[in-house]
Amino acid sequence: MTKTGDIRQSRTNLDIRNGQVNLSHGSGGRAMAQLIASIFVKHLDNELLRQGNDQALFNVEAGRMVMSTDSHVITPLFFPGGDIGSLAIHGTVNDVVMSGAKPLYLSAGFILEEGYPLAELEKIVISMAAAAKQAGTAVITGDTKVVERGKGDGVFINTCGIGVVPAGVNISGNRAQAGDAIILSGSIGDHGVAIMSSRENLQFATTIISDSASLHNLVADMLDVTKDIHCLRDPTRGGLATSLNELAAQSAVGMVIEEQKIPIKSAVRAACEILGLDPLYVANEGKLVCICPAEHAASILTTMQQNPLGKNAAIIGKVISDDNHFVQMNTAFGGQRIVDWLAGEQLPRIC
Amino acid sequence: MTKTGDIRQSRTNLDIRNGQVNLSHGSGGRAMAQLIASIFVKHLDNELLRQGNDQALFNVEAGRMVMSTDSHVITPLFFPGGDIGSLAIHGTVNDVVMSGAKPLYLSAGFILEEGYPLAELEKIVISMAAAAKQAGTAVITGDTKVVERGKGDGVFINTCGIGVVPAGVNISGNRAQAGDAIILSGSIGDHGVAIMSSRENLQFATTIISDSASLHNLVADMLDVTKDIHCLRDPTRGGLATSLNELAAQSAVGMVIEEQKIPIKSAVRAACEILGLDPLYVANEGKLVCICPAEHAASILTTMQQNPLGKNAAIIGKVISDDNHFVQMNTAFGGQRIVDWLAGEQLPRIC
Repeated sequence: MTKTGDIRQSRTNLDIRNGQVNLSHGSGGRAMAQLIASIFVKHLDNELLRQGNDQALFNVEAGRMVMSTDSHVITPLFFPGGDIGSLAIHGTVNDVVMSGAKPLYLSAGFILEEGYPLAELEKIVISMAAAAKQAGTAVITGDTKVVERGKGDGVFINTCGIGVVPAGVNISGNRAQAGDAIILSGSIGDHGVAIMSSRENLQFATTIISDSASLHNLVADMLDVTKDIHCLRDPTRGGLATSLNELAAQSAVGMVIEEQKIPIKSAVRAACEILGLDPLYVANEGKLVCICPAEHAASILTTMQQNPLGKNAAIIGKVISDDNHFVQMNTAFGGQRIVDWLAGEQLPRIC
Repeated sequence: MTKTGDIRQSRTNLDIRNGQVNLSHGSGGRAMAQLIASIFVKHLDNELLRQGNDQALFNVEAGRMVMSTDSHVITPLFFPGGDIGSLAIHGTVNDVVMSGAKPLYLSAGFILEEGYPLAELEKIVISMAAAAKQAGTAVITGDTKVVERGKGDGVFINTCGIGVVPAGVNISGNRAQAGDAIILSGSIGDHGVAIMSSRENLQFATTIISDSASLHNLVADMLDVTKDIHCLRDPTRGGLATSLNELAAQSAVGMVIEEQKIPIKSAVRAACEILGLDPLYVANEGKLVCICPAEHAASILTTMQQNPLGKNAAIIGKVISDDNHFVQMNTAFGGQRIVDWLAGEQLPRIC
């Protein structure tokens, strides 16, 4: 069954302003074709999507490719700094670019709950289209399913992305080496706190905005400095603490980070205190951790700071030898503590 | 955050026999790493998944590639002839191979409802692994999200697949031409009726089994006969009627099919009468429609019939010139009727 709808089936207009998703929009029949044509293809439009087949066909050159997927179940669907549509693009683009790859194409799979307003769905799709364009990629194939009221929660979006890794780039979580520097691209906790504040309807003097953004340009800038970057990871669910622990375990190394070097906005720090959150474990959606040979750290950092998405980048620590693969932190008060993996669920449905 | 878990985090065993999915399994922390290691990586195991990064990296040769995605929300999750796990593989493999491509790799995104039994989840993943292996492909990257009780429905699975199109193959829904033959690979309605019977707890003399299967070998066999196949499509949601209408519209042609030539199992026909379904609109998950030049039809048909998944294949009609792009059917009673698109929702959550 075609994934992209046939525009010729859309002569009967969908009432986007007042309409709601109903089960027929997931049927594979005329109503689904209308929904796809009037919302998905209309806004996500590109030559490959327009092929109108069950799959999109494209040319590739010989080389190395990456594939990554993320399902997005964030609540609320609209939040300060973004919505599930832009997040679904940024999230997968970032997973692709954390290999050093240039994003190539994306797929999108929607699971819609019966009764969801079509006008809201259109806003989400418009936001996806803008985010994909900004990241230099496109949604080339998709799928729509509808579940009954109470069997979903408005909109869930899966995206899958593929990208092409430039020659000479070898970035993987298992490549950190003792002596490497650890660079963080900016302040932590913005996304998680923006979502929690929005859920709890908390008002702060300054609105806290999600950092949700595609990091493709930042990574490209960094690779222009040197291809000799060992690891990149975006500290999403589980936050910076979990990403560092993952990398330490994968590379069989330890790490020491300096609490005072980790950028945290004062509003985020204050909100975390109110909400009882440790910012080290709060999700980010537009930040990355870079592990690189110490000799490249200063020049990579300078370049990152010239990119708007890296302007608060900082070298926050270093990789050490440690058979326990511990992440240790020298605290602001001069002590030292182990920064463990996130245990339990700090923030459900944060992405 | 790593998509594939770190097996070193799984020292504390997950209680798969008695455990349930909880929100911490979607947290990005230790519980999620354990779930991934103990169920996903354990059963779906392959070298690329084991890279343990946010994305899987692989080599590609220059050429043409396709990408396709499907989210699966079928209910019930286990049904005669399969489960959501095998279906999620077959569905996406088939969308990939309907371009003539050889399946390369798959991603899998899980949306789990809090409280879902881990033992059932493991069964689903084991089934996915077997289906992927049988289709000569593998799940190389994944994602797990958990939603609160009542915000999902057990398990939803998105899969995205990529495949490589052999040189000389040019299959697309817009390539049907007047004079082409229309071949159907086997009996229609099996999947939809199996699901509906299972939902309604209907007992028939013969259990009706879903036809859910990967059609990669069947398509490969057909392309061994000739690369000159114009269209392939799997008549899933919306059934044979909708697929033929899609192809007619895309190719700007008409079609005439012969009702008597369309294989339908007698049990399926009887069940459709009881359930008030028109088998032409009932979903299939292991069938394909092939449109090819008339001169190749007999040899393609013979080859299809030698494959277990095509043993009941039949030439069911032909493509004609028609500015209205109608699909007409010569009925068993000697009349003729227009076979329209599916309107409304015949069978919700059939895949």
